[in-house]
Amino acid sequence: MLIVYGMSDSGNCYKVKLALEQLGLAYRWIEVDPVKGETASAAFLAKNPNGKVPTLELENGEFLPESNAILNYLADGTPLLPGQRLARARVLQWMFFEQYSHEPYIAVARSIMRYTAPDSPERAQLPRLHSRGQRALGVMEQHLEREPFLAAGRYTVADIALYAYTHCAADGGFDLGKYPALLAWLDRVASQPRHVPLHLR
Amino acid sequence: MLIVYGMSDSGNCYKVKLALEQLGLAYRWIEVDPVKGETASAAFLAKNPNGKVPTLELENGEFLPESNAILNYLADGTPLLPGQRLARARVLQWMFFEQYSHEPYIAVARSIMRYTAPDSPERAQLPRLHSRGQRALGVMEQHLEREPFLAAGRYTVADIALYAYTHCAADGGFDLGKYPALLAWLDRVASQPRHVPLHLR
Repeated sequence: MLIVYGMSDSGNCYKVKLALEQLGLAYRWIEVDPVKGETASAAFLAKNPNGKVPTLELENGEFLPESNAILNYLADGTPLLPGQRLARARVLQWMFFEQYSHEPYIAVARSIMRYTAPDSPERAQLPRLHSRGQRALGVMEQHLEREPFLAAGRYTVADIALYAYTHCAADGGFDLGKYPALLAWLDRVASQPRHVPLHLR
Repeated sequence: MLIVYGMSDSGNCYKVKLALEQLGLAYRWIEVDPVKGETASAAFLAKNPNGKVPTLELENGEFLPESNAILNYLADGTPLLPGQRLARARVLQWMFFEQYSHEPYIAVARSIMRYTAPDSPERAQLPRLHSRGQRALGVMEQHLEREPFLAAGRYTVADIALYAYTHCAADGGFDLGKYPALLAWLDRVASQPRHVPLHLR
């Protein structure tokens, strides 16, 4: 059986849970908390030398890290990942956008607001994170004004990757009310078959 | 013909040039300089609303941004990108590692050291960038002690993606002498057929 090493509150880990649920795949979830240093243990680094969750343990005992690589692996050959060359590249375009231009601002702002004290010096980063994050949300809004989903005209793992931290961006101080096309897309994603929320509990 | 909108000194743009040359594809290169604000023009934002190079113009007139999505598009169906599901996920694992855990430290340190004045306040970031970048180089070193290439046991677009900013990491103040397996890999990559250097001129 597939095993996910993940932190339940992490959007990157939620991506994997959502794909597994929607693909109807059986899996075991092992909670690993980076905040408590659990990704820095020798036992965990033997699984992923980069010390990050999620990490997927495959049926053959190999370990696959990087949330978006895991999504591509799980969805390969299913309707969640198109097989055609350009459509597949468009899925990746949005997934690399997510990891470079979106997550480092939107997820990091959320993490700071959820896990640091109100007087933490880390909060000095928030204005810059909000400015960059709003730019990313604006790029999504512009695309979603014309398209129902991010890539290939249909629901794919690109939508899963960007839904994860966009739908809870308010946790990081972002006002999604300014992005109506994006809000409509969030609703479309949440109404897909077998959708599960970030927090099952 | 394919058209690359790129900045010649950028490692992200170099990835695309290297793949095009190694695949023997004809292309035109249009120089676009983000430092001069050329990626923020209305004309460029119409091509890539995220305002970044490289952006590839396809034969059908569509635009494809994100260096690593471009590499996957160009290499699809060629020896540079395996077709098998897990091998393909391993290529993506290293490409997402590159964009999240490597480039934001190693490329950004290089950019600061090449494009800011010696007394620029941006240089205060360098100790943090060096520490995180060394961690990424250490993860690569550990892998390359056991494997000749990053994924699938052979030269792929994952190697192109990570070669781009690793081979010129000294520009950002990194000492590669501490990573012998990585240095041997750099030599293996540079000796592949049709390799071209970062600066053709």
